[in-house]
Amino acid sequence: MPAKNRRYRNLMQAAGVTLAVGILSISSAHSDEAAKIAAIFGFGETSVAAQREIEKKFDAAIDPADLRAWLQNMSSAPNHVGSPHDKANAEFVLKRFKAWGWDAHIETFDVLYPTPREVAVEMLSPKPYKAKLRETPVPGDTSLGKLAEQLPPYTVYGADGDVTADLVYVNFGMPDDYKVLERAGISVQGKIVIARYGQGWRGLKPKLAQQHGAIGCIIYSDPSGDGYADDDVYPVGSARPSQSVQRGSVQDIPVRPGDPLTPNVGATKDAKRLSRDKAETLLKIPVLPLSYEDALPLLQALDGPVTPSGWHGALPITYHYGPGPAKVHLTVKSDWSLKPVYNVIATLRGAEFPDQWIVRGNHRDGWVFGASDPLSGHVAMMAEAQAIGRLVAGGWRPKRTLIYASWDGEEPGMLGSTEWAEAHADELTRKAVLYLNSDSNGRGFLQAAGSHSLQHFVNDIAKDVTDPQTGVTVHERLRAKLEAGAFENGGSVPDSVAKGEMPIGALGTGSDFTPFLQHLGIATLNLEYGGEDASGGVYHSAYDSFDHYVRFGDPTFAYGAAMARTLGRAVLRVSQADVLPHRFADLADTVSRYADEVQHLADEQRTRAQRLDKLLSGGTFKLAADPTKPRLPPAAEAVAPHLEFAVLDNAIERLKKSAGAFDEAVAKRGSGTDRLIQVNAVLATIDRAQLEPGGLPGRPWYKSLIYAPGVLTGYGVKTLPGIREAIEDHRWDEANRYIVATAKVLDGYSAKLDGAAALLK
Amino acid sequence: MPAKNRRYRNLMQAAGVTLAVGILSISSAHSDEAAKIAAIFGFGETSVAAQREIEKKFDAAIDPADLRAWLQNMSSAPNHVGSPHDKANAEFVLKRFKAWGWDAHIETFDVLYPTPREVAVEMLSPKPYKAKLRETPVPGDTSLGKLAEQLPPYTVYGADGDVTADLVYVNFGMPDDYKVLERAGISVQGKIVIARYGQGWRGLKPKLAQQHGAIGCIIYSDPSGDGYADDDVYPVGSARPSQSVQRGSVQDIPVRPGDPLTPNVGATKDAKRLSRDKAETLLKIPVLPLSYEDALPLLQALDGPVTPSGWHGALPITYHYGPGPAKVHLTVKSDWSLKPVYNVIATLRGAEFPDQWIVRGNHRDGWVFGASDPLSGHVAMMAEAQAIGRLVAGGWRPKRTLIYASWDGEEPGMLGSTEWAEAHADELTRKAVLYLNSDSNGRGFLQAAGSHSLQHFVNDIAKDVTDPQTGVTVHERLRAKLEAGAFENGGSVPDSVAKGEMPIGALGTGSDFTPFLQHLGIATLNLEYGGEDASGGVYHSAYDSFDHYVRFGDPTFAYGAAMARTLGRAVLRVSQADVLPHRFADLADTVSRYADEVQHLADEQRTRAQRLDKLLSGGTFKLAADPTKPRLPPAAEAVAPHLEFAVLDNAIERLKKSAGAFDEAVAKRGSGTDRLIQVNAVLATIDRAQLEPGGLPGRPWYKSLIYAPGVLTGYGVKTLPGIREAIEDHRWDEANRYIVATAKVLDGYSAKLDGAAALLK
Repeated sequence: MPAKNRRYRNLMQAAGVTLAVGILSISSAHSDEAAKIAAIFGFGETSVAAQREIEKKFDAAIDPADLRAWLQNMSSAPNHVGSPHDKANAEFVLKRFKAWGWDAHIETFDVLYPTPREVAVEMLSPKPYKAKLRETPVPGDTSLGKLAEQLPPYTVYGADGDVTADLVYVNFGMPDDYKVLERAGISVQGKIVIARYGQGWRGLKPKLAQQHGAIGCIIYSDPSGDGYADDDVYPVGSARPSQSVQRGSVQDIPVRPGDPLTPNVGATKDAKRLSRDKAETLLKIPVLPLSYEDALPLLQALDGPVTPSGWHGALPITYHYGPGPAKVHLTVKSDWSLKPVYNVIATLRGAEFPDQWIVRGNHRDGWVFGASDPLSGHVAMMAEAQAIGRLVAGGWRPKRTLIYASWDGEEPGMLGSTEWAEAHADELTRKAVLYLNSDSNGRGFLQAAGSHSLQHFVNDIAKDVTDPQTGVTVHERLRAKLEAGAFENGGSVPDSVAKGEMPIGALGTGSDFTPFLQHLGIATLNLEYGGEDASGGVYHSAYDSFDHYVRFGDPTFAYGAAMARTLGRAVLRVSQADVLPHRFADLADTVSRYADEVQHLADEQRTRAQRLDKLLSGGTFKLAADPTKPRLPPAAEAVAPHLEFAVLDNAIERLKKSAGAFDEAVAKRGSGTDRLIQVNAVLATIDRAQLEPGGLPGRPWYKSLIYAPGVLTGYGVKTLPGIREAIEDHRWDEANRYIVATAKVLDGYSAKLDGAAALLK
Repeated sequence: MPAKNRRYRNLMQAAGVTLAVGILSISSAHSDEAAKIAAIFGFGETSVAAQREIEKKFDAAIDPADLRAWLQNMSSAPNHVGSPHDKANAEFVLKRFKAWGWDAHIETFDVLYPTPREVAVEMLSPKPYKAKLRETPVPGDTSLGKLAEQLPPYTVYGADGDVTADLVYVNFGMPDDYKVLERAGISVQGKIVIARYGQGWRGLKPKLAQQHGAIGCIIYSDPSGDGYADDDVYPVGSARPSQSVQRGSVQDIPVRPGDPLTPNVGATKDAKRLSRDKAETLLKIPVLPLSYEDALPLLQALDGPVTPSGWHGALPITYHYGPGPAKVHLTVKSDWSLKPVYNVIATLRGAEFPDQWIVRGNHRDGWVFGASDPLSGHVAMMAEAQAIGRLVAGGWRPKRTLIYASWDGEEPGMLGSTEWAEAHADELTRKAVLYLNSDSNGRGFLQAAGSHSLQHFVNDIAKDVTDPQTGVTVHERLRAKLEAGAFENGGSVPDSVAKGEMPIGALGTGSDFTPFLQHLGIATLNLEYGGEDASGGVYHSAYDSFDHYVRFGDPTFAYGAAMARTLGRAVLRVSQADVLPHRFADLADTVSRYADEVQHLADEQRTRAQRLDKLLSGGTFKLAADPTKPRLPPAAEAVAPHLEFAVLDNAIERLKKSAGAFDEAVAKRGSGTDRLIQVNAVLATIDRAQLEPGGLPGRPWYKSLIYAPGVLTGYGVKTLPGIREAIEDHRWDEANRYIVATAKVLDGYSAKLDGAAALLK
């Protein structure tokens, strides 16, 4: 369920990173002869030649034709959780992994996954209308053959219900929209809301509606988002057809992902399960998604004041708030039985360090055919596994253990990956060195996000992968994009980009990295290509088909191949590295920037609240308002006290110093030391030190104090989440507590770095 | 033709003004008794009481019922130039002025005003469509009775023509849009363009199309501008109905307004006239306006690449560039005979200073019924004239001469006012102390723009006029609006606003002030109310009717009354002032800010050109571009040399010093001096010193070096235009020349101020 660029800060934002300069690659001190072979970050001069050779063979074994054939096969029928084709795909993948020499098996979990028995939306008055809720074949797409096997369009983990009420339009249904409603004097209490997709994760829309007293929620695809306002609609162009519906999860993933009934443990046959009413990630109100064809009559029937201009979509109507006179009847009845999810797990045992694991995953389940999401990424992962298999067949062995995972049940809420991570939590905690994720892939630019100590590692790889369209490296192309984009938008790139170091984003949620990064504290990367594909218009619909993908996704599968070469290279390098390829100054600088942000946020809030107070007491908003269009003044805001940031500032100073010292020690001593095993043992698990055992407020499953999905942003990341969200929500005591907790975590991290640096003395 | 907020910098922008503080009103040094009567800027303590008394009587004589009755009568039939009702309205107004005791007459000019004989737009292929080009009655508006008398929707001063070509969509048809077209590889050469209204003055759209080689131009009202995206369409709401068309002038007004055949002289019967082919303000290509109902089939038929998102209007289609396959046939045939314009000129001779004139004007001609534009402003002006007439009937006489003008022919290009100003140029140059303009009026906030030495004068008046809806002063309400608006937009107001001094905007063009301010150098103000009215949706259409105005413009005419009280007060105060009410520090600070802006602009351009050069030579744009959607890199830009700004900086330092010294001298000596007659004689004509006799490059009619309409912004102002436009267009030598010329003009202004200050010593 990628929803590209939602789950992490977008590139231009991330590009604010300032990097320390002049830190040397450990292989920078080449002898003259070795200098002929380009250095690889993490490798000493004696091992780089062999690695280059392996990578050359690996690259040669990637064939776009394979990706195309696998994609066509796997997307030939609906493959959602519980569907026959999902299981068939698992078996297909299992067979391939085995054929390629991997030790592979299917690991099954039994999860709560409601499937719709009855879904209906109808308008009772002023003019009866029954939503079609049906995606039909379009001319020119022959890959939609098994459309009949799809489930009806629905959102998973809303409540069952049969509700009738006046409708209220709530724009994107996000927190700021409810402030606008409040000032307009409009309540959603006892109403059914209709929100358009966009500006925030789907699952937050019904959650916020429920919190504000609504009894049902409709989410529709306004053509302003991914319809005719964006491109001609499919099959003429790539955009969402009028009858197309975006399905998706509305589980409360920011609380925790995975099977709602088995928090913290794997959903094995005999796992202890919560009763459904105790499962806090399930909504209490029914929710359904609509196409714009089905939404238009409802929106057209709304009366009440005209909404502000930011609320206007691209339908040819005047957007009103309501409530009513549109009266809507919404029905959802589901089959709440447990369903199996089938993870395919394939292992290649490490020859030297079998207890250092590199886990590589991509999900396999789609909402319907899932050609782009997720199979375009999945087939690239298969190409990597096949190519590695050929290396092994040629006598090569990984130093560290490789685990390739084809996850099931990602779409409803990262079910397969979360249950697996929970079931194997102890072993992963001891052994996992890296989790490497991907999801959908497409034509365009490298999109990288994850643990910032791996930023330089990603840059190093990007300089060795060729962009299929331009022939330059994907690194050079990305840099061109950032520089041209900044120029055209009237902005600028930071010095680091100008100097050639591309920033990586921070991860929120929305794909299978979440249990690894944020629950278990495993160093994580999510790498994909995109930005020139046009798969977004059919996101989570039946039209995300093979035929659509080969027209608008990655027609030649050249970017699928580039993806395999990028992520495969990451696997091979971490597997074979002399020193695990972290550069900690990048993390320190990034966290330092986050700390500046939260301090700035607190100051800004204080200034704003004081100014607001003055304007409110002067009656300014009342005087400024149009008396014929009553609009209440904004609510007063609590004035933030000054927070105790010193302890955080000190921890960051220490982190910068420790990171710099370690990086320098590696650069100086590098592979020349005989204590690499001990150093790597520290580095392998160092990211566990980013965890707070008690987790985040109200959501203890999320334990990272550096990265988390936002409670009110969903896929969107909150960095330093304990501090940032406490400030945003005016919980000052909690903010001070998490400043201390975060500082403590950073100090622990620094201590580990100091220990590793000492080994290099 | 107001197009509110286009002709001057909008309020929030204008709010950047920094004012000197602590400058005293000349009446600030009251004795204890006189202090009971509030001071008036420009009045000494001995004269303020009488003035207050007069203003009280004046206010009492303003009756909203009069405004309503006059508006209903005058908007009861189409009243464009040459129509029977336009002449009837002139006679109606003449009769009223005379009845109120004014010395009034009709002054007629004969102007080139083409009226349509045949207008047609049809699509020949791929699907025949003939535009209706017709506005029909709507249910519920009984004031549209004489709709049959309207001219067909057209734009005035395009060429006659009969052209057929493929259509190209050019977005708003502004300079940046042509850059986008060029980068997309799309030429309009030999094509017909279709542009949507908005983002720049109407007349620039065909002018730029013509410059780029197009052979015809269609301008349509996309519903994103003033249609259903804004409000429910009339008669349900205020917005433009689907068949409604915006008429208007496409004369090249930034070159000069007025009769195209008689530049610089009044278009009297026997004036020397240019032949039509020599009239440089006439376009060479035919132009027609369309409703969105008529534009939709044409836009829908366009093919070619999908346009960028900023080009998408609110029609339910994907917006393509073309060219074609839509092939369009456009016909315009006009009656090019001269037509009469009837200015009604009413005078009250000044008792003490008959040769100091205060000219007050509002135009009378509309495009159809013209209820809002211009009659809503015109009836307020009539109320002033009636109330002043009553004062005179009661024995009062103005000290200075008052001239009230009901202008005809403003809509096609300020014909009536320009010809009158040209015909009386010598006398106006000697005698005019102030030109005070208004145009449409509506419910809302005071909107003030003009000569910045009058900013404090406007503030002083605004503190004495009550806002009809809130009961506070219009000054306090405007301040609330600026402060609340800044808070809600995340911005801030400058200290001056926080301290209670509201900025006034700078004037471009778009109403009758232009010949006075920018051609003759007369101190000018344009004052109106608006911002809460919703008359904009029917701008320049048949639906700008009495019924529409009383629902959406100013239902109770309370703001018409407020307008009369504001502008009448300005007339009375300038008429009776002891010292003409300028505060020159405001002008000096404003011009100083403009000078900072142009210097910043030059620096920014240089930096940008250098950066662009680097990116172009590195091939960055080519690498960043999507190879499947060819987009050329931006064109290289010349790197600006450093300009010779020192002479301007010195002139501004001098102006600040001279202004401060004069203001202080007035505050100290004020009405206590016996040389007020000499001082006022200087102040009366001081704004003539803002003129450069040679005018602006390529448009010598425009002589002000402080304010001008932009060559490429139309109504939108360019301040320090000689310098600013030269920099914008990379004409560096010209920029240096106008820096010198502007400095010289400012020095001349300062010298006059020094002379006036010396009189006060």
